[in-house]
Amino acid sequence: MDRSSGRVNIASNGEDGMSHTFSVIGLNHGHINGQVQGLLKTGDWSIKHVYAAEPDLLEAFTTKFTDVTVAESEAQVLEDDSELIASASINADRGPLAVRALEAGKHFFVDKPCVTTLKDLEVIKAAVEATGKKWFAFFGEMVLSAEVEWVREELRKGNLGEPVHFMGLGPHSLRIDSRPDWMFNGRQYGGILNDIASHQMAQFCYWMDQTPIPQFSRVGNLYHPERPEFQDFGDASFGGSKGATGYLRVDWFTPAGLPSWGDIKQQLITTEAYIEHRKNLDIGDAPDYKAKLIVTRSDKETEVVDLRGQKAPFFERLTKDVEDGTETAIPFELGYTASKAIVEVQQQAITLEGIKKP
Amino acid sequence: MDRSSGRVNIASNGEDGMSHTFSVIGLNHGHINGQVQGLLKTGDWSIKHVYAAEPDLLEAFTTKFTDVTVAESEAQVLEDDSELIASASINADRGPLAVRALEAGKHFFVDKPCVTTLKDLEVIKAAVEATGKKWFAFFGEMVLSAEVEWVREELRKGNLGEPVHFMGLGPHSLRIDSRPDWMFNGRQYGGILNDIASHQMAQFCYWMDQTPIPQFSRVGNLYHPERPEFQDFGDASFGGSKGATGYLRVDWFTPAGLPSWGDIKQQLITTEAYIEHRKNLDIGDAPDYKAKLIVTRSDKETEVVDLRGQKAPFFERLTKDVEDGTETAIPFELGYTASKAIVEVQQQAITLEGIKKP
Repeated sequence: MDRSSGRVNIASNGEDGMSHTFSVIGLNHGHINGQVQGLLKTGDWSIKHVYAAEPDLLEAFTTKFTDVTVAESEAQVLEDDSELIASASINADRGPLAVRALEAGKHFFVDKPCVTTLKDLEVIKAAVEATGKKWFAFFGEMVLSAEVEWVREELRKGNLGEPVHFMGLGPHSLRIDSRPDWMFNGRQYGGILNDIASHQMAQFCYWMDQTPIPQFSRVGNLYHPERPEFQDFGDASFGGSKGATGYLRVDWFTPAGLPSWGDIKQQLITTEAYIEHRKNLDIGDAPDYKAKLIVTRSDKETEVVDLRGQKAPFFERLTKDVEDGTETAIPFELGYTASKAIVEVQQQAITLEGIKKP
Repeated sequence: MDRSSGRVNIASNGEDGMSHTFSVIGLNHGHINGQVQGLLKTGDWSIKHVYAAEPDLLEAFTTKFTDVTVAESEAQVLEDDSELIASASINADRGPLAVRALEAGKHFFVDKPCVTTLKDLEVIKAAVEATGKKWFAFFGEMVLSAEVEWVREELRKGNLGEPVHFMGLGPHSLRIDSRPDWMFNGRQYGGILNDIASHQMAQFCYWMDQTPIPQFSRVGNLYHPERPEFQDFGDASFGGSKGATGYLRVDWFTPAGLPSWGDIKQQLITTEAYIEHRKNLDIGDAPDYKAKLIVTRSDKETEVVDLRGQKAPFFERLTKDVEDGTETAIPFELGYTASKAIVEVQQQAITLEGIKKP
């Protein structure tokens, strides 16, 4: 494939100018919009089919993405000539769907959480090895962040010493009445740690470059007894295979007054630096300046690294990986290791009792 | 004692106008300066004796507080006519000293950590009950903070719903070469959680109004093998007797570039609000605005509660407690419960292996 010629016609947006095609199966989480938009914006991808069991989700999707054709069945999509399937299906369906897509000869690009069981993950690994196709985990908070990339590069260059501790906080606003039922079904949802703290676990793996070792975790339905299978709080302590430490916490208690779905934060402590990444907004400050990366080193004063408006080139890297067989967007090993660790801490978690409503 | 007449002569600062006298035993931590200054600034207290085993610490103290008389022995202080002993001795010495002071008929005002063993704490409790004297725990970060008081009042009024989670972070700069040897002696120091995370544990008890239940904790000497008994990292997860959750983390890795000894933070999640208290500085922002209290509720947008320059009236309350037998500064039960919980999480902690130096 001549990559440069494939880009000549981007501006025309004509299908002839596109190098690659993808289809979509599963619209159960809104993240699919970001996945599709990201692929389309590269100018290298066009969209072919979409399949979903839910007519309302299909209608919203086709209103947004008018170039797509609605397929009558999942099988029709698996048999089309697209190279890649993007999916944000119900959490528990993502693992088996990955295997069907890989075995149909397609790359698979899946929203987090990628699986809900360790068995699903092992079957994916085997399918990747057998088919040679790519399985791309989409930890959107991480892979699109220029700040995350900046820190990773500094760590790689040795400018930040040895990693000591990573803390990742992922509070979310629940808006309980507008959430679909499957989010309150234990098996389909797969637990709060796996569902939303998979972001934080992937971040630990990406920055620290070591395998997480679960130590202690807890989950609970602290204050939503009307949804008995839901978990509204979870946190976990873990180590790393090179001696670093990690902690993550997620919850669904962000109050409606926050002008965002959550105040996502990360802290990284190394032997030479202290870093805070206010990932989603800078709470208490002007609302127009979102991400903020605050770096203090042993040899110079606190500085705010200003990367506002920049994004990491995740989708361009994904395209390159499809074309060249590289692993620049997100290595399989990273998606696998992070998914394995977060399912483990989910499964090993103690269950907390609820707070009594007054 | 006529309290109002005792205050008439405050401005003259003459000893005759002072209602109360105190003495000092143990100068091993600089916190003693804040304890003494706080008492003197009320205008109700004058200082009588100081005793310490270390000539250099005595010299620094008497240079700062010129009205004090150096005692020749601890016994001389215990036998003087002061009403209260203030102390910031070596951590492990604070428990036994408390009992000697109480049994000498004096109130005891002790820097945190108050004890290093559970046995010491029980003996103190018995001595308080037997003597009727006060034992004041000095969790300076907490009791002097107007922001902490503001949150507590809102919780008490029911304006913040039910407590869900408390997180307290206490990173510190080590400056290893200037620390005294006892801080690197395991028995004298008593471990990192007890030494510095006692602040965070007291905070949990004060805001949440429930007894901590230890769940998991870990400590380690991750990167300072030249001081083998030192712990440079610790964190702990615990519950509360009414169903809240807690997490605290402390370390000695704050880099020299930070214009402070640490970026101390607290987060409080309730069923109605999300609160961040940047306690010591607002990292990344203007250095002149120190504490920042950021409050988001379910019914209104994020606001910064501006209490800059205000302090909670801890020392005035302590004076009142001595005079009236009340417990307004820090109830015995709070100091006891927080001390018990933090010694427990220290003792139950798993020990982490160190990071290999490259």
